[in-house]
Amino acid sequence: MKATCEQLARIIDQARGLEPADLVIRNTRIFCLTSGETITGDIAVCGDRIVGVGETYSGKNEIDGSNWTAVPGFIDAHVHVESSMITPYEFERCVLPHGVTTAFCDPHELANVAGAAALDYFLECSRRMIMDLRVRISSCVPSTHLETAGGALSAATVRHYATDPAAPGLAEFMNVPGVLNKAPDVLEKLSVCSENIDGHAPLLGGRDLNAYLAAGVRNCHECSLLSEAMEKLRKGMQILIREGSVARNLDTLLPLINVQNAPFLCFCTDDRNPLDIVHSGHLDRMIARAIAAGADPLAVYRIACYSPALHFGLSDRGLLAPGCRADIVLLSDLEQCRVAQVIKDGRIVDDALFAARPPAPSVAPFLHSIKREKVSAEAFRVRSTRPETPVIGIRELSLTTDFLKCTLPCDGGEKRAIPKQDILKVAVLERHGQNGHIGLGFVRGFGLHSGAIASSIGHDSHNLCVVGVSDEDMAVAVNALIDAQGGLAVARNGKTMDVMPLPVGGLLSEKSFPEVAQELERIHQSARLTGCPLETPFLQLAFLPLPVIPFLRITDQGVVDVEKFTLIEV
Amino acid sequence: MKATCEQLARIIDQARGLEPADLVIRNTRIFCLTSGETITGDIAVCGDRIVGVGETYSGKNEIDGSNWTAVPGFIDAHVHVESSMITPYEFERCVLPHGVTTAFCDPHELANVAGAAALDYFLECSRRMIMDLRVRISSCVPSTHLETAGGALSAATVRHYATDPAAPGLAEFMNVPGVLNKAPDVLEKLSVCSENIDGHAPLLGGRDLNAYLAAGVRNCHECSLLSEAMEKLRKGMQILIREGSVARNLDTLLPLINVQNAPFLCFCTDDRNPLDIVHSGHLDRMIARAIAAGADPLAVYRIACYSPALHFGLSDRGLLAPGCRADIVLLSDLEQCRVAQVIKDGRIVDDALFAARPPAPSVAPFLHSIKREKVSAEAFRVRSTRPETPVIGIRELSLTTDFLKCTLPCDGGEKRAIPKQDILKVAVLERHGQNGHIGLGFVRGFGLHSGAIASSIGHDSHNLCVVGVSDEDMAVAVNALIDAQGGLAVARNGKTMDVMPLPVGGLLSEKSFPEVAQELERIHQSARLTGCPLETPFLQLAFLPLPVIPFLRITDQGVVDVEKFTLIEV
Repeated sequence: MKATCEQLARIIDQARGLEPADLVIRNTRIFCLTSGETITGDIAVCGDRIVGVGETYSGKNEIDGSNWTAVPGFIDAHVHVESSMITPYEFERCVLPHGVTTAFCDPHELANVAGAAALDYFLECSRRMIMDLRVRISSCVPSTHLETAGGALSAATVRHYATDPAAPGLAEFMNVPGVLNKAPDVLEKLSVCSENIDGHAPLLGGRDLNAYLAAGVRNCHECSLLSEAMEKLRKGMQILIREGSVARNLDTLLPLINVQNAPFLCFCTDDRNPLDIVHSGHLDRMIARAIAAGADPLAVYRIACYSPALHFGLSDRGLLAPGCRADIVLLSDLEQCRVAQVIKDGRIVDDALFAARPPAPSVAPFLHSIKREKVSAEAFRVRSTRPETPVIGIRELSLTTDFLKCTLPCDGGEKRAIPKQDILKVAVLERHGQNGHIGLGFVRGFGLHSGAIASSIGHDSHNLCVVGVSDEDMAVAVNALIDAQGGLAVARNGKTMDVMPLPVGGLLSEKSFPEVAQELERIHQSARLTGCPLETPFLQLAFLPLPVIPFLRITDQGVVDVEKFTLIEV
Repeated sequence: MKATCEQLARIIDQARGLEPADLVIRNTRIFCLTSGETITGDIAVCGDRIVGVGETYSGKNEIDGSNWTAVPGFIDAHVHVESSMITPYEFERCVLPHGVTTAFCDPHELANVAGAAALDYFLECSRRMIMDLRVRISSCVPSTHLETAGGALSAATVRHYATDPAAPGLAEFMNVPGVLNKAPDVLEKLSVCSENIDGHAPLLGGRDLNAYLAAGVRNCHECSLLSEAMEKLRKGMQILIREGSVARNLDTLLPLINVQNAPFLCFCTDDRNPLDIVHSGHLDRMIARAIAAGADPLAVYRIACYSPALHFGLSDRGLLAPGCRADIVLLSDLEQCRVAQVIKDGRIVDDALFAARPPAPSVAPFLHSIKREKVSAEAFRVRSTRPETPVIGIRELSLTTDFLKCTLPCDGGEKRAIPKQDILKVAVLERHGQNGHIGLGFVRGFGLHSGAIASSIGHDSHNLCVVGVSDEDMAVAVNALIDAQGGLAVARNGKTMDVMPLPVGGLLSEKSFPEVAQELERIHQSARLTGCPLETPFLQLAFLPLPVIPFLRITDQGVVDVEKFTLIEV
C-alpha cells in the first residue's frame, strides 16, 4: 500500500492514539488468523489502512462491534463475473455484502465476443469499483479452432496487457494440449507471463502435470477428485477449491482442509449464476459449509482470506493487522459466517457508498453484438440419408455429455428428431457477423414436449444456441434473441413466450441484480411450460458448445467429437 | 522465473520425459513441504528449474540420491555479510555448502564506511554470484547523529535504489524513534519503499508497535522474549528467529515453532562471525537444533525454506516442485540436517563451480579507508577534576551494556582508569577523514591486565575502537590499524603484538574464509595474552559504539546515554 509522507504522518499519529482514528470498531471480537485466538478489543482504521488491533482507541467515527466477530475480507481466487449475468458494477453490489472484498476475475466470456475491448472494459470498471476486482488476462480466446468467436486475444495482445500493473497475470490456461504440444502461440503467452499463470487442468497428472507446472502454471480450480488434488498439492500446485453453480468440488475436497494444508488452498466460485447467489450465497456459504462439515475454522478462514493473498502476492491483505488494508468483515456468527457488515478500504459498505461511485463505464461497445440475419425454419433442416446419428446426451447438473448413437428417420433426404424419445434438434448459429455458420445436431435429455429454448450465452464463443421440438419454434426463439440483441428466449406454437434480454455482449443485463434474478426465475418458469424438467435448462444449453469438455459437443461448425478433437458428420 | 519460448519447449519435453533431463537425482527421498510426506522418487531438472518430482526420469547427468533426503534450499531472511569479515564472493563459498541458497542481506556496515558505493558493490557481487544474495537498501546510515560515519544514505538515495528491481526493499528500519516521531527523512524513506520494509524493533509493543507496523514495516528479527514475539505475531509481523554470534533467540522462541505458526516465521543469522560459522555452522545448525529440541521437522523446514520465500514474494522457490527454481539440498540426515550436497539453480555446488565464476568486482574503492593521522599516548588523556564517572559495563555475550557510576582518581586534572578493578580506558577515533574526533571513556568487563586491543570494526559508523591498560599501548594498537588500513590489533609493552588486516573498508579481509577464520583464531589467542578472558573480545569492543542499544555507549563524539539519547560528560 502506497502512502505519501503526509498520509504516513496521520497513520502514525492515529496508530499511537495521539489523534482519533478515522474509524474505530469498538470492543469487538477479533479472530486472529495468525495465532488462532479470538481476542476482544478495538480495531482502528486510518484512511484505507488498519492502524491498530487490540488496544483501546477513540475514533472520529465509531461502530459498536460488541455483537460481532471481525475477520479479514474474503478473496475469490477465480471467478467469471459474466456467469452472474450482470456487469462488474452490479456484481460488486451483489458480492461485497457477502464479504468478498477481492476477486480475481477472468473476463473471457466477454472477450470471446469482443476481444481486447472486454479487457479494457473490465480494467476500467475495476478502477472505478469499490471491491478490488483483479482482472487476469484471458489466455485462451477463442478456446479452440472448432468454433467461431467474435474476439481473439493473440500472444501479442497478451504481451501488451502483461505490462499493465493492473493485469499482470494470465487467467486459466485451458489449452493443456497446447502446452504439452508446445504450440508456438501458447509458448509465447507462457513466456510473457511467467510466474503468474492460473491453471485449468482437470484430471491432469503424472509427467504431463509436471510439464504443465514446469511451464509456469501455478494453480488449478478443476480438481474433482481427492487423489487428483493430493497429487497437485504434493507438486506445489495451489488448489482453488471451487463451488460453482454446476461444478461443485467442496464436498469432495473437504478432507484437504486443515491448518497444515491451508497455505496451499484457496476458495473460488468460478461460474455462479444469479439464482445460485440468491439462494446459496457466495464465499460466505462455502465457509459456513466447510465449518459445518467439521473443518477447523482457523484453516477455513485462512483459506478464504490469507492464503489467496499470499498466493497472488498481495502482501497488504488477508489479516486483521496494523499496516493491512482495512478490508474487514463483521460477522454475527463466526462458524455460520453470517455477515453483518462489510468494510472495504476503511469504508462502510452500504447503499450510500455504492451511490457515490463514479459513473459506470459505458457498455455501448458491447451492445448490438448479435450480428446475423434472422432465420426461417428451413435453416434447421438436417439433410441426410444415413439413419445412424451421433446424439449428445446431457445429464442434469453435469457439464460432461455422453456420446450416444441413435438411429433417426430420414424421409426424403431429411433427418428428423424423435421428440417422444426426447431426441430433439439442437443448433448453434454463428452471431459475430463472420460467416453465418449454423451447426446442426441432436440432443437427448432436455425433455421438451413442445416449443424451443434459445440462448446467446454459449460457452466459450457465445454463438446462439437453440434446442427445440419444432424447426418453426427454434426459428422464432432465435429471431427473438436477434430482436433483443441477446438473451434467453422461450418460444411455443410459433410465438415468442418469453425473453430475458442480455444486451451487453449478449451475455449481461444492464439491470440490477435483484431484477436479473427475478427475470431469470421467470424465464425458468416459462421454460418449464415446454415440458423441460431440468433445474437450469439455459445453463445446460449454454455449455453444449464448449469443445474442451468431454464427450460430444456442438459448435457453429458442427458436432465435435471431443476425444478426437474433430468435427463429425451428423 | 523467466523463460524464453525455446527454453519452455525444452522444459516441457524434459518434464514429459520425451528427452533426458539435464540433471536427475535418482531414487532419493523427497521431503514434501506441502503434504509433509517423505516420498521416494526422482527429481528432474532442466536448466535452472525443477521439471519433475516423484516420477522416474533419465538424465544427461544423473546423481544417485538413494542415501539422501532432498529438501529445498534454505533462505537466510536477514544477514549482514560483513559480520563474517569476508567479501560476498567468499561468503557464498562459506554458506552455500551449508545449504543457504538465498539470503537477504543488509550491507549497512560497508555503507556506513562508503555510502552508496557499498550498495553498488553488493549489487554487482550479487549479479556475479552463484547463491541468490538479495540486497536490501540500508535504511539507517548513519544510524544516529551521535557519531560520525563515512557514508550516508539519504532519502533521495533510497529513492534511487528503490527503482532497481534487484534491491526493491528497505533493510532493517532501526530508527524506531524516527518513525514514531515522524522524522521527515524517515517518512520519505518509508513512503518510497512501502510494502517492502524490514523491521528492527526490540521490545516494541502496544500502540507504538501498531504505528511502526502501520507505517509499513513487515518483520522483526529482534524478538528476545516469547511474549514480545507473540504480540508481534498476533499483529501480523513476520518473526525472523535470529541466531547470531552474540544475540541468540532460538531457544527462547522455540515454543513458537509449529505448523500453525510456520507461515509467520523465518530464520536468520543477522551477525555471525567466522569462528562461529566454523564451529556452529549456519542455518543448517539452527534447523538441527530446533528439531533436536522437539520442534516438528515439517514446521522447521517450512520456516527455513518456504515461509521466507512467500514473505519476500519469491514465488519461484521454497518447495521441491515442478516449476520451482532448482535450489536443492541433499541431506544425509534430515533431522540433524547434515548437508551432503547442494544444488543451486540446477548446478552442483563444488569447487569447480566456484572456480568458474566471473571475476569478483574490484574492492579498490574500499581500500585505504582509514583516513586519519597517527596518534600519540597524549590523545587518550582524560582531562577532568570530577571523580564521579559514568562507566560502561559490559557483559559476556550480550550487546546490552550497563550504565555504571564509579569514582575515579583525578590527579592534576587528569582522570585515570583503575585496571586492578577492571576499569579501563576506552576510545573511539573518527577515521573517515571528516573531523578527527576522539571520544574517550571508561569501561568495565574487558579484564585486560596489560596492553590494548583495537578494531576498525565499530558498529555502525566503524570508527576505530580501542580499549587498553596504558595510553601508550592504545596508541600503538590504533597506529597499527592505520598502518594496516583496517583490521584488529593487539599491542603490549609499547609494541604491536598481532594484527589481522581487514583492508576492505576496514571491515573485510580479501582472504579466503578458512584463512580468515585461522587469523581470527590467532588474534584471539594474542588478545588472551593481555589477560582478557572474554570469548569474543573484538566483537564486544566493536559493539560498544552502537548508540541504539541500551544503556551506555561510546562514539567518536563521546559517551552516550542511550535512554536520554544524548552525549554525557565523562
